[in-house]
Amino acid sequence: MTYQKILLAGRPETDITPDLFTSVREDIPTISAGEVLVKLSHVSLDPAMRGWMSADPNSYIPPVDIGATMRASGIGYVVQSNNDDFPEGTRVIGLMGLTEYAVSNGQGLNKLPDDIPAEAVLSVIALPGITAYHGLFEVLKPEAGQTIAITAAAGSVGSLVGQMAKNKGLTVIGIAGSEEKCTWLKDELKFDHALNYKDADFEQQLAAVANEGIDLFFENTGGIAQAPIYNAMNAHGRIAVCGMIAEYNKTEPAPGPSWINIIKKRLMIQGFTMPDHFHRISEYGQALGGMLAKGELTYRAHILKGLDSAPEGINLLFKGENQGKLIVEL
Amino acid sequence: MTYQKILLAGRPETDITPDLFTSVREDIPTISAGEVLVKLSHVSLDPAMRGWMSADPNSYIPPVDIGATMRASGIGYVVQSNNDDFPEGTRVIGLMGLTEYAVSNGQGLNKLPDDIPAEAVLSVIALPGITAYHGLFEVLKPEAGQTIAITAAAGSVGSLVGQMAKNKGLTVIGIAGSEEKCTWLKDELKFDHALNYKDADFEQQLAAVANEGIDLFFENTGGIAQAPIYNAMNAHGRIAVCGMIAEYNKTEPAPGPSWINIIKKRLMIQGFTMPDHFHRISEYGQALGGMLAKGELTYRAHILKGLDSAPEGINLLFKGENQGKLIVEL
Repeated sequence: MTYQKILLAGRPETDITPDLFTSVREDIPTISAGEVLVKLSHVSLDPAMRGWMSADPNSYIPPVDIGATMRASGIGYVVQSNNDDFPEGTRVIGLMGLTEYAVSNGQGLNKLPDDIPAEAVLSVIALPGITAYHGLFEVLKPEAGQTIAITAAAGSVGSLVGQMAKNKGLTVIGIAGSEEKCTWLKDELKFDHALNYKDADFEQQLAAVANEGIDLFFENTGGIAQAPIYNAMNAHGRIAVCGMIAEYNKTEPAPGPSWINIIKKRLMIQGFTMPDHFHRISEYGQALGGMLAKGELTYRAHILKGLDSAPEGINLLFKGENQGKLIVEL
Repeated sequence: MTYQKILLAGRPETDITPDLFTSVREDIPTISAGEVLVKLSHVSLDPAMRGWMSADPNSYIPPVDIGATMRASGIGYVVQSNNDDFPEGTRVIGLMGLTEYAVSNGQGLNKLPDDIPAEAVLSVIALPGITAYHGLFEVLKPEAGQTIAITAAAGSVGSLVGQMAKNKGLTVIGIAGSEEKCTWLKDELKFDHALNYKDADFEQQLAAVANEGIDLFFENTGGIAQAPIYNAMNAHGRIAVCGMIAEYNKTEPAPGPSWINIIKKRLMIQGFTMPDHFHRISEYGQALGGMLAKGELTYRAHILKGLDSAPEGINLLFKGENQGKLIVEL
């Protein structure tokens, strides 16, 4: 019996290209004392993978070694177990990689109930959800009546930030890169406003909908939407910098706005990445699971089929062409 | 009996020019019930005055009206009093303006002991000191063993930030714009390092002294020193944005650095201005007075003589040509 896995073969200079990965088949491994064998059903494709592929010494977690299985989070079932904490049949989630089977000693694995669809887990309760929850509630500290602007608002993180902010009583301005996404944000997610940053008159549209200024800014993209939102911030505004997907593939990132408004408006800008806050995963996950059960959170998943779709599929994220959480079904 | 005062006559587009002020002489006013007449001995020239002169709607306190006495903080003695809180002979400090005499109902006036020289009050306990204290202890929250970089380090705020950080056990890197200032920082204030940002190899000098990175950045200037310091920040670094004196006189401020390092290093950037924190003035003033009495804070004052020196003198701040706290002695 063999299985497929995808190894990192090179580091990206700019774009992620398929030649940076190698697909291999190997015999399904035997497990040692304390270990489990997991057969994966779904793996998640996330923007963070660009950072894990690069050897940037400033990155927040160690890069994947060349020749190692590419890091990715996934869901599966324990099919063999030498570990009493994870008996055969247990459904688990963890950073198991782009692989059909994974061996684990249980560290970093979390149990999942059987009755939540994998799409819901990866779209809401896993990395996107905990990122949205932490950034909104711990960094931005929203209050009812405030106005929040969210870039990549139709993305897996942004769409949850906006829905949680709306439920908290904020005015939500979502910024996305297509009419289709804007329609989804307004019609399905009930955002107050959804703007396409590719429109020639985006700045005027923003000024019209943010006529009382912006109190909170959840930044996922960088790029051309950043400066107009920043310049519309109100005094004592707060900015959570979660992602800069428009910049990750550039050799030389574009400059940011002058800091002069940081003083004039006494802005607070905080960057965050979730590995610093993994000790709070279960707390956040429970809160998100509760919202999901109450029907407060809508999501959509963009499903690719088979591991071979992963190396090309990742780029949908960087082109903004995914419609919902990008997931590979195995 | 007449006295001199200086009125705001126009708003600066770029540089502050003497024609933006008018000097007038008027009869010394009579005071009403509850009022006091103060004869000023010293007025303070501060970078914040640039903002008070402009009509920028984003500014943090209302601008000075055209034709009104130019706002400035100063020290003087009550020479006539209809207010039991401030009897004749009381020494006071407050935003009394560029004037030889001021009438006040006591609001915004604070009493001063007679035995502290005016230079020490305006250099340490007044705006520069409370700004340095708030920015260092409340925004940056320093810990012994950390490294701090300070721009305009020989300025009235920066020189106090560096000394308080040194006393707290930090490694202090001061950045200034002349050899004379750097020598003062190292020889008199005992900073660990003092670098001249005008040196052609400033970036290499910074990399050499900040070889373990920078944890805290107290930003007073903007300009060419900003990006190299920002790029040298360590993970979880904190930046207090207190001033951007290199940018205030520009019609179009220079762009800032890309936000990508804000994520990678999970930086926190906070702008602040003291009017938001004036309720803590007396607490900060007491702490600073204690440090001054213990000989922990060295300062130097740059004294100009007579009100007529103020309109030209303000520009010494923007050219970096003042040596110490800029004060007009009346």
